[in-house]
Amino acid sequence: MSVKTIEWRDGELLLIDQRRLPRKEVYRVCRNHRQVAQAIRNMVVRGAPAIGVTAAMGVALGARHIRERKNVGAAMERVFKTLADTRPTAVNLHWALARMRSVYEANKDGELTVLRRRLEEAALEMYDADVAANRRLGGLGAALLKDSRRILTHCNAGALATAGYGTALGVLRAMKESGMSIDEVFVDETRPFLQGARLTAWELRKEDIPVTLITDSMMGYVMQRNRVDAVVVGADRVAANGDVANKIGTYTVAVMAQRHGIPFYVACPTSTVDLSCPSGAEIPIEQRAEDEVTHIAGRRIAPDGVNTLNPAFDVTDHSLVSAIITEKAVVTAPYDKNLRDTCAP
Amino acid sequence: MSVKTIEWRDGELLLIDQRRLPRKEVYRVCRNHRQVAQAIRNMVVRGAPAIGVTAAMGVALGARHIRERKNVGAAMERVFKTLADTRPTAVNLHWALARMRSVYEANKDGELTVLRRRLEEAALEMYDADVAANRRLGGLGAALLKDSRRILTHCNAGALATAGYGTALGVLRAMKESGMSIDEVFVDETRPFLQGARLTAWELRKEDIPVTLITDSMMGYVMQRNRVDAVVVGADRVAANGDVANKIGTYTVAVMAQRHGIPFYVACPTSTVDLSCPSGAEIPIEQRAEDEVTHIAGRRIAPDGVNTLNPAFDVTDHSLVSAIITEKAVVTAPYDKNLRDTCAP
Repeated sequence: MSVKTIEWRDGELLLIDQRRLPRKEVYRVCRNHRQVAQAIRNMVVRGAPAIGVTAAMGVALGARHIRERKNVGAAMERVFKTLADTRPTAVNLHWALARMRSVYEANKDGELTVLRRRLEEAALEMYDADVAANRRLGGLGAALLKDSRRILTHCNAGALATAGYGTALGVLRAMKESGMSIDEVFVDETRPFLQGARLTAWELRKEDIPVTLITDSMMGYVMQRNRVDAVVVGADRVAANGDVANKIGTYTVAVMAQRHGIPFYVACPTSTVDLSCPSGAEIPIEQRAEDEVTHIAGRRIAPDGVNTLNPAFDVTDHSLVSAIITEKAVVTAPYDKNLRDTCAP
Repeated sequence: MSVKTIEWRDGELLLIDQRRLPRKEVYRVCRNHRQVAQAIRNMVVRGAPAIGVTAAMGVALGARHIRERKNVGAAMERVFKTLADTRPTAVNLHWALARMRSVYEANKDGELTVLRRRLEEAALEMYDADVAANRRLGGLGAALLKDSRRILTHCNAGALATAGYGTALGVLRAMKESGMSIDEVFVDETRPFLQGARLTAWELRKEDIPVTLITDSMMGYVMQRNRVDAVVVGADRVAANGDVANKIGTYTVAVMAQRHGIPFYVACPTSTVDLSCPSGAEIPIEQRAEDEVTHIAGRRIAPDGVNTLNPAFDVTDHSLVSAIITEKAVVTAPYDKNLRDTCAP
């Protein structure tokens, strides 16, 4: 794989520092769960599926540092809490921690070494399962987008947002692998964190897929000029009714796509679907620090004394979503019924 | 006035360098029409009405450098052409040059000193008329927005975009002057050139009007959360049917406003209305250099090898426009009839 987002190396977790891309490929080493939590919070690693797998590895790292049998319970609760408190919107984080907790519960009364091994195995399985799910999802998406040669995407739902291969960009990879030609991918730069300009543009260039970078404000212009056949984005959480929380700006892209009759597809593994969350209104939206808005690339762009907002995500109403592409099926409306049928365990 | 955008000082034109704001207040001195043309092209000065007045002063400066009576015709043609070729979308540029040309035509056969004086007087009259028009426009707009306390604007249609007072921001100034309270102004940062973050936020802070700076991608979020009562923006050219060319991203703001039942107002002097242009389809859209997209604040944000688009403007269909606020009247649909009635000479 050309992009290595997350790598487990015998008790160390290597993460490519996504804040430094595309200028520098720097890898950060996490040796305990606190370093992992910080990497998630600071967006060294981001993207719902990548956060999930990283947190799972954080649990495995946390267990490694428990020296005495009698401390396991309290220590593991601290590990779970520290990791759960990092970012509120992406459901994969909580999904991954719940899985790790079930492995922990099943093994907590046995040997410490066995517990550690089981947690490590579970995290690695989650990693493999994410890549495999994205490959299946990509294949289903490629079939769906077979007549779309000009695609617009927002933020980064690529290999960098997952254990590998990507969701929205996984669809593009699968299109390319199956010999379909992609004429142009419009990449929204995705302020404030610039995941589009920095990460998606970089990933697609590595795959030799033609990129046209635009600012978020240009998306309506390219749709108006009839230059987009389909939109495909990722998701941080999908509610039971099909409402989609994704990177701030996604809602606006979806409204503009509907206005121009362009299909709006969401690509995400079923682990991103939260059947316990009835609608988008119940999804917590993370508010991030204001310096992401007042500064770019370390330089202040705004005058002193201004307030800012910095919601990391917005909610796209399910009525704007043409289909949700998962590794199990392409789900269409009515989402409440069809998501339950596809995603219920 | 707290913001001095353009200042004529006995044969010199002073322009605040808007590329350096808000960090530095640097003034650039233009002594001939070529320096003026370069300042317009490089966006030292920007905003349709400001470009118009600046170009008029450029004509006056050009005439000052003609030494011999017999060279007047050829020299003045070069002056007009150099200034006309700077930026294609803003109609005020061409409107201002046409006015200056009529003054030139009326005086070209007389004394050179008289010609120079007449051109200078005409440019200064245009400056005064722009400020006066904006004050009247502001008053009409303030009456229209009397129940709006939370306003969103895009780009900079302020004192910095005009000879003074501003169009969209002139409405806000007039609201404040007439004692209306403004709770919050959402300012889109307006990538790629960041006129919102750098200029509008700076201007409104100087007026002590509360600013909340957001990225362009957050505009849909604040509308969705019911935090905006009205949108008011400027215009670079309004076609005879009411289609509006304005800063890239305006079209998307207008679509989102319509979706949320928020009135979308355009504030511009009648000199921005181009009755000779039937619709937005005929308005030329300037494409600017790609480094405005690939770089921010002098730093490259995108990887090598990506294409970009950089349209400086987009066109908002008149069906999305609730009203056009001019210095003569607030114009509503049907725009073809009502713009002609209001703006025809």
